[in-house]
Amino acid sequence: MELQPITWVIPIAGLAAVAFALYLARDVLRRDTGTEAMQEIAGTIFEGAVAFIRRQYLTIALLAIGGALVIGVVITVVEGQSVADTPIFGFDLGWRTAAAFLVGAACSMASGIIGMYISVKANVRTAAAAQHSLVGAVQVAMRGGAVSGFLVVSLSLLGVYGIFAAFGGFGADTLRYAPFLIVGFGFGASFVALFAQLGGGIYTKAADVGSDLVGKIEAGIPEDDPRNAAVVADLVGDNVGDCAGRGADLFESTAAENIGAMILGVAVYLLALQAGWPHPESWIFFPLVVRAFGLLATIVAIFFVRGREDENPMNMLNRGYWVTTILSIGGLALTTSVLMNTGSDTPGANGIASWVWFFGCGVVGLLTSVAFVYITQYYTSGSWRPVKEIAEASKTGPATNIISGTAVGFETTAVTAITIGIALLASFWLGEQAFANLPGFEGRGGIFGTAVATMGMLMTTAYILAMDTFGPITDNAGGIAEFSHASGGAREITDHLDAVGNTTKALTKGYAIASASLAAFLLFSAYIDKVNLIQERRGAPLLESVDLANVSVFVAALMGAMLVYFFSSLAIRAVGTAAQAIIVEVRRQFREMPGIMDYTQRPDYARVVDITTRAALRQMILPGAVAVATPIVVGLLLGYEAVAGLLMVGTIAGVLLATVLNNGGGAWDNAKKYIESGHLTDDDGNVIGKKTPAHAAAVVGDTVGDPFKDTAGPSLHVLVKLLATITLVLAPLFIR
Amino acid sequence: MELQPITWVIPIAGLAAVAFALYLARDVLRRDTGTEAMQEIAGTIFEGAVAFIRRQYLTIALLAIGGALVIGVVITVVEGQSVADTPIFGFDLGWRTAAAFLVGAACSMASGIIGMYISVKANVRTAAAAQHSLVGAVQVAMRGGAVSGFLVVSLSLLGVYGIFAAFGGFGADTLRYAPFLIVGFGFGASFVALFAQLGGGIYTKAADVGSDLVGKIEAGIPEDDPRNAAVVADLVGDNVGDCAGRGADLFESTAAENIGAMILGVAVYLLALQAGWPHPESWIFFPLVVRAFGLLATIVAIFFVRGREDENPMNMLNRGYWVTTILSIGGLALTTSVLMNTGSDTPGANGIASWVWFFGCGVVGLLTSVAFVYITQYYTSGSWRPVKEIAEASKTGPATNIISGTAVGFETTAVTAITIGIALLASFWLGEQAFANLPGFEGRGGIFGTAVATMGMLMTTAYILAMDTFGPITDNAGGIAEFSHASGGAREITDHLDAVGNTTKALTKGYAIASASLAAFLLFSAYIDKVNLIQERRGAPLLESVDLANVSVFVAALMGAMLVYFFSSLAIRAVGTAAQAIIVEVRRQFREMPGIMDYTQRPDYARVVDITTRAALRQMILPGAVAVATPIVVGLLLGYEAVAGLLMVGTIAGVLLATVLNNGGGAWDNAKKYIESGHLTDDDGNVIGKKTPAHAAAVVGDTVGDPFKDTAGPSLHVLVKLLATITLVLAPLFIR
Repeated sequence: MELQPITWVIPIAGLAAVAFALYLARDVLRRDTGTEAMQEIAGTIFEGAVAFIRRQYLTIALLAIGGALVIGVVITVVEGQSVADTPIFGFDLGWRTAAAFLVGAACSMASGIIGMYISVKANVRTAAAAQHSLVGAVQVAMRGGAVSGFLVVSLSLLGVYGIFAAFGGFGADTLRYAPFLIVGFGFGASFVALFAQLGGGIYTKAADVGSDLVGKIEAGIPEDDPRNAAVVADLVGDNVGDCAGRGADLFESTAAENIGAMILGVAVYLLALQAGWPHPESWIFFPLVVRAFGLLATIVAIFFVRGREDENPMNMLNRGYWVTTILSIGGLALTTSVLMNTGSDTPGANGIASWVWFFGCGVVGLLTSVAFVYITQYYTSGSWRPVKEIAEASKTGPATNIISGTAVGFETTAVTAITIGIALLASFWLGEQAFANLPGFEGRGGIFGTAVATMGMLMTTAYILAMDTFGPITDNAGGIAEFSHASGGAREITDHLDAVGNTTKALTKGYAIASASLAAFLLFSAYIDKVNLIQERRGAPLLESVDLANVSVFVAALMGAMLVYFFSSLAIRAVGTAAQAIIVEVRRQFREMPGIMDYTQRPDYARVVDITTRAALRQMILPGAVAVATPIVVGLLLGYEAVAGLLMVGTIAGVLLATVLNNGGGAWDNAKKYIESGHLTDDDGNVIGKKTPAHAAAVVGDTVGDPFKDTAGPSLHVLVKLLATITLVLAPLFIR
Repeated sequence: MELQPITWVIPIAGLAAVAFALYLARDVLRRDTGTEAMQEIAGTIFEGAVAFIRRQYLTIALLAIGGALVIGVVITVVEGQSVADTPIFGFDLGWRTAAAFLVGAACSMASGIIGMYISVKANVRTAAAAQHSLVGAVQVAMRGGAVSGFLVVSLSLLGVYGIFAAFGGFGADTLRYAPFLIVGFGFGASFVALFAQLGGGIYTKAADVGSDLVGKIEAGIPEDDPRNAAVVADLVGDNVGDCAGRGADLFESTAAENIGAMILGVAVYLLALQAGWPHPESWIFFPLVVRAFGLLATIVAIFFVRGREDENPMNMLNRGYWVTTILSIGGLALTTSVLMNTGSDTPGANGIASWVWFFGCGVVGLLTSVAFVYITQYYTSGSWRPVKEIAEASKTGPATNIISGTAVGFETTAVTAITIGIALLASFWLGEQAFANLPGFEGRGGIFGTAVATMGMLMTTAYILAMDTFGPITDNAGGIAEFSHASGGAREITDHLDAVGNTTKALTKGYAIASASLAAFLLFSAYIDKVNLIQERRGAPLLESVDLANVSVFVAALMGAMLVYFFSSLAIRAVGTAAQAIIVEVRRQFREMPGIMDYTQRPDYARVVDITTRAALRQMILPGAVAVATPIVVGLLLGYEAVAGLLMVGTIAGVLLATVLNNGGGAWDNAKKYIESGHLTDDDGNVIGKKTPAHAAAVVGDTVGDPFKDTAGPSLHVLVKLLATITLVLAPLFIR
């Protein structure tokens, strides 16, 4: 089978992005590492991070190997010839799925490990650069972040491409089956993401809450004080959660949604084959090509992250984001016009070519991503009503602060859900127009339209992820500057960057939610396609609908919505339990090492890091097991239609609860910052700032928001996608 | 058409319950009204309550008249012959629906007003009785509460029965249409319940939060201090929320679920008619008869509320509950065996008669109610892990208290959802067995089984509601005892009763949620039946499934889940806004009436009551409008199948969020009480009690929980049922 030349962009862009990431890494590593004091504390953070990464990824690798074995065996046993969706079944399918699972898991782990390595090297260089220049500091942090962004996206692209090629994606006869054979890759990515996000989220917030409680409240020493043995664990935690966790989250998004879109492409491919269109295989390769162009757009955009010394750093980052978006639109136009070739006739509505309609779908996806960037800013930045409202409510104490923040968190679901709803309806409608004049294509265009929208949205993932990792790097740079008593100018710059980093971290969560929910529809459809392939082969009636009025589907839907709360409950509680372990250890050090308090003894930072690591890893097992087990148990008990109900309603519930937790937490955080920067005043115009009761109330809100926005919320993104990949891989298990 | 003699039990039990309520009211009113000081403060509460009731129900009445007009006109215009579900359409249907709506609204208002009247008369008599006897006080409070319970259930029974009779329920030709003609009654009840619960919920918590903030925090005077001008509004609020609000909530449950069950009965009636069974109409009358037996059981049970002076009052109430449950099982057996007569053959599985299987469904409903009583106790009472966990977390401050309470609230969804899921699957399965050997009955038995389970559960409503109203009466009695400096013995007894009242209030919410979710399935099915009647008459394809994989249904489902959060956000925020109005007024009184502080001037309690009333009524409009408008807008935009998705997923999301808010709030409340009663100790075993930082942290949790459990949570119960009745009434509007 001869592919169109444009498909060469996939390996080229993938490898170019890897090379560019290595170039950026080298560039960052060659920069100034600052004063000796800076290097010392940075070294301690680095050690802690490496210790966590080693232990965590060892645990995850063991879990993944165990998972791969179980999946391989289950599929070998269950997916015999009678319930297989392709001509490959039994052991042949079992080992392939297990192998794809392991490759997905390995790629996800590799991108997490390398990205995090660079991130904990970039922090001190950012602090050093901040001694001289704002722009320099922004560039170091952004380039350090971009290493993560490029590796995650390019490894996901190359991984899917490679495994697709290995499992017959280039053979004319095997092409139609290959996308179904690689779903294990997505499941592997989900599996790693679940534990990376859970473990990282628990670690970061346990360290944060634990160090605050034992340091600020019990011992009465300030935040980030070197006498607090938990303070390094806290700094390590920023990297672990936001860099490694979110990287795994978005690795999974790009991989799973890419595979889902290819599965939907198979249906169009078969129709295109029948209709005699040129290059019917293009419909399956489309997701890979469009993502490759997204990577190229992002490489160019990195060079636009520049500006004047007196400029708001957010503007520099936004400049790059807009360049990525605009170039992506161009890449999207090129890809759709070349790949979506329907021959000479125009099957689209109103005489407009199909590719134009699908191009519209992709633009909808890109616009949705832009919309979420601004929605998140509105709800979590101090410039607008929601955060101000929470800050005002802090005047009457912690209770009103919490009530107000909860109301804001709940409120954010409205515009989120409406935006997602419009994006889905619009891309579905546009997709339907694309095939409007083609009998036999009914219903296919609409669903493929939502897939194109999702792919459009994912074009900017590398840039978004670079901005996200910018967050922990600048956060750490601030900590290093504080710790090493750097000059006032450097601390002012890192403070400024830290505030920008808070915004970019919030944006990424909004983006992750939006892509998860846009992709949800695509992944359900892929599940239904897979079930119907199986049903067709065994001569059973097709799954025509997922009927909520069917009692099993309804009960499964109820279980899906419940799972989201129960999982969050376990994740939130895990933070508390792990924090207790830290408190006990820091108390012990204060007691047994009396020199700590008068700076004559150095606290044993590494021990706290180690204890936090172990506690976080222990605590991630239960919520992780619940997340994996629930869809399997419900599927076994209630069947394949019911489990689709669990998947869909679980997704809706998960997306909304994650929105509540992320945005509520972000708003609480920034309400505290709003008060700290002196924006809150009393009726007479006097500033109510730090160390006031209102500030104390806002600190309570911030602490409550921590496990919401950094543990439970992000873990829910992963949970939602895990539900999709797990049902996709284990579908045959649920068919009786 | 000649009905079976057993149906006479409907008017007899309904009237008997009304008579019994009047007897109880007279009994309560004749009791000792206590000391002069008690009478004075009780008089002030009474005035405040009457002022609120007058203004609130006037507002609601105006809204209801407006609503009835709109509905009448819309149905007249929209539901012409082509989209009518029965031979009655256009103006004939319009005025009937509007009339049914008004009767439903009026019955709901009447039961709320009378119940509340007795409740604010019973409070002082409970306080007076508490001077001499615990048992006496329990009996006064329970009998006062029972007035509410009996009136709500009997007016709902008689109202549905009367309007059913008026609209042709006794005519052999018209019987099959009558249940569809009376859906307006349920909508009227929902409409009143929405505003009664919202207005009452906002009032009670605004007064509570406002008086605490301005009294305890600003002025530094104790809770319930007579110098606080908001204190009477606070006492009035207890009645307004728990008595009038919950009464309207359960009035609506019983009415709407009764009508939904009758609609499902029509399908069985038509099949029974074909099959030539004796008295096929019994299948439609069944819900009314079974509820009538529930009322009779409750009348008997009231006499079992007795005990020894040294007994735990909860035991006395539980004794009555168990008597109600056991007698209800007997009534259920009688009703099913007489009414569910399938002639001589046995159409049920395994040769067991159909009625036995349906009897099993009813028992499942009763057991579900019992399960929820115990689940709620586990999560909200101080004797078990969840509340203790929150109390422990209070040791490290308000933030950990809130985090822990949130984790508990989220956790409660698991056992709740699993119980509901089991109840639905079990009653569906039992119902299927009942008609297992009847071709043509496929799918009917299962759905009717869930209806029977719901009716079984509703048999105990009057008793549950009596226990609920026991709560505000004893709460008020405690306030009156405190205010009037009653003897120590009286205060000890009222404190004890108040704690029991907290439990019974929580139980009722659990019961309300369980009945709403069990009924949900019944109400969807009724909606689908109605849509299909319309589709059949217009020759359009039937609604065979509510397909979540359809993009419109999915987006509507997303909107349904979002509505639940957005509505709660508005309700929670309304409490804050209304509380601000109270704070401003109390501050003004402190400033302008300097004699208040040294007890030489009496604060203007009535003015605060008036301001709270107006603020609560103003604030209830927006959430109420959003609740009513969203299903209509979504239905108009996306059609009748999509709106069913909104209904179903909105119900799932609403039930779970209400569970989180109610149980989380209840657990926070009792964690505070747990600390106050000296159960919390430090590592050395010293009691950490009142006035400690841990207690202050627990107070924060309690305050946060207030609008959750008393405003947003209960309003969500009503919202869920409103979605069902609104779609049921306006279905023709959504069919194009």
